[in-house]
Amino acid sequence: MSTHPSLIARYGKDEAPALARLNPFVEQLLSHRSVRAYLGTPVSDDALATIIAAAQSAASSSNLNLWSVVAVRDPARRGRLSELVGNQAHVREAPLQLVWLADLARLRQIARTLERPSEGLDYTEMFVTAVIDAALAAQNAAAAAESIGLGTVYIGGMRNQPEAVAELLGLPPETFAVFGMCVGHPDPAHPAAVKPRPPQHVVLHHERYSNDAQQTGLDAYDRNMADFYAEQQMNVRGTWRLHSAKRVSGAESLSGRDRLVEALHALGFKLK
Amino acid sequence: MSTHPSLIARYGKDEAPALARLNPFVEQLLSHRSVRAYLGTPVSDDALATIIAAAQSAASSSNLNLWSVVAVRDPARRGRLSELVGNQAHVREAPLQLVWLADLARLRQIARTLERPSEGLDYTEMFVTAVIDAALAAQNAAAAAESIGLGTVYIGGMRNQPEAVAELLGLPPETFAVFGMCVGHPDPAHPAAVKPRPPQHVVLHHERYSNDAQQTGLDAYDRNMADFYAEQQMNVRGTWRLHSAKRVSGAESLSGRDRLVEALHALGFKLK
Repeated sequence: MSTHPSLIARYGKDEAPALARLNPFVEQLLSHRSVRAYLGTPVSDDALATIIAAAQSAASSSNLNLWSVVAVRDPARRGRLSELVGNQAHVREAPLQLVWLADLARLRQIARTLERPSEGLDYTEMFVTAVIDAALAAQNAAAAAESIGLGTVYIGGMRNQPEAVAELLGLPPETFAVFGMCVGHPDPAHPAAVKPRPPQHVVLHHERYSNDAQQTGLDAYDRNMADFYAEQQMNVRGTWRLHSAKRVSGAESLSGRDRLVEALHALGFKLK
Repeated sequence: MSTHPSLIARYGKDEAPALARLNPFVEQLLSHRSVRAYLGTPVSDDALATIIAAAQSAASSSNLNLWSVVAVRDPARRGRLSELVGNQAHVREAPLQLVWLADLARLRQIARTLERPSEGLDYTEMFVTAVIDAALAAQNAAAAAESIGLGTVYIGGMRNQPEAVAELLGLPPETFAVFGMCVGHPDPAHPAAVKPRPPQHVVLHHERYSNDAQQTGLDAYDRNMADFYAEQQMNVRGTWRLHSAKRVSGAESLSGRDRLVEALHALGFKLK
């Protein structure tokens, strides 16, 4: 049995699971790559409606639909967003920025209009639920966008300065921009690569969590990522493990996100 | 132009966006339904490897891979999990339960081994990042599972008693079961339905957040959901809006999740 090429791209040939066949749907998911170079061609209204229909087809906890998304096409606003997320050029250049919101405001207002109590929304649980709802919707959106030939990349930098993002997008209290997402036609002059992931046994545990199983997998992953950094001519010093550890060395490595709790309080979340 | 039937199932005929065509990939995403009745047939190792490959192909923030998943097949452990999530029979009956973890433990240990500081992991930002990573991975997994003929349903009840879940699954400090997911072959005797969602203009905003646009959409959604409750013979009193408001009326409506912050601290998250 020969291993499917998409699995080799994702895991390297030594660590790819030995599956010969993937259906076209799974193959499409496996082909995901983060695109950071876009053509100027706009994303059509039809494409956007398709992407949103996919997003809304993801599960939502108790069907509460605790998320919203702001579609930003205006070049000036994209430019301002680009500054707020740490001067990422692709946020300015991609014709469409989708800003995914954890949204407790809608249900708060529904309860108010019905003159019903809604103290449940004051709890961290409901914030977490809204973040999850937004993430599930966004992942369906990203997959759908890729399936119609568009490229995407998530923009976690939307959490660098949450209050400024909220002001720019006119967000009401108890909404929060969880992340952004560039959407556009990939520039063929700058093709993106499939990024290797750790071997399955690093993330997949059977019956109970196993730490031991992870260590050999991480050795293999460091080797695969070293090859990837070289191929992509990425200027990464040291192993994936070292690079990742540096990313979380302290408050100063979080690009302002060490004050997330303070920002969420300022945005009206009670986080009880 | 006639509207695609999958869009009518998702939005009702009055609110479906007027797209005549969807590609097979998007059609598959739109066909999602939460399955709560399963046959006993096991999920094969090949199917699981396919699902995990899809999960790992989702984006991961800074490629930190801050998630893990525990595959539970043992009937006794599934039974215990079923009790912990509020006696949901399908958690006992589905042959595979995937418990998705926000996992800061792996990177904490990597940093320790490298004798590097990792105080960045003490911040709420990194907990939120791990929750997002887990959710993106899980949504790809759910979509992949459905594409190979399996059914799924998310189990938010995994957050009812986080410490007991952690003990049962042997979770190390700084890991957290964000949600579970039943996976199995749907029982054809109890087919699941596509659940309607609010009209697109309820969740989709252009350039800036708009509250006004949402209200007429919510009226339409209450009507669609009333039809759905009747068709499905669901015992729901009042509108979707009323039902949803009741779900967040106060701490007592959160099934124990009002103590999420306390539980996370007990599990070793610092949440600075």
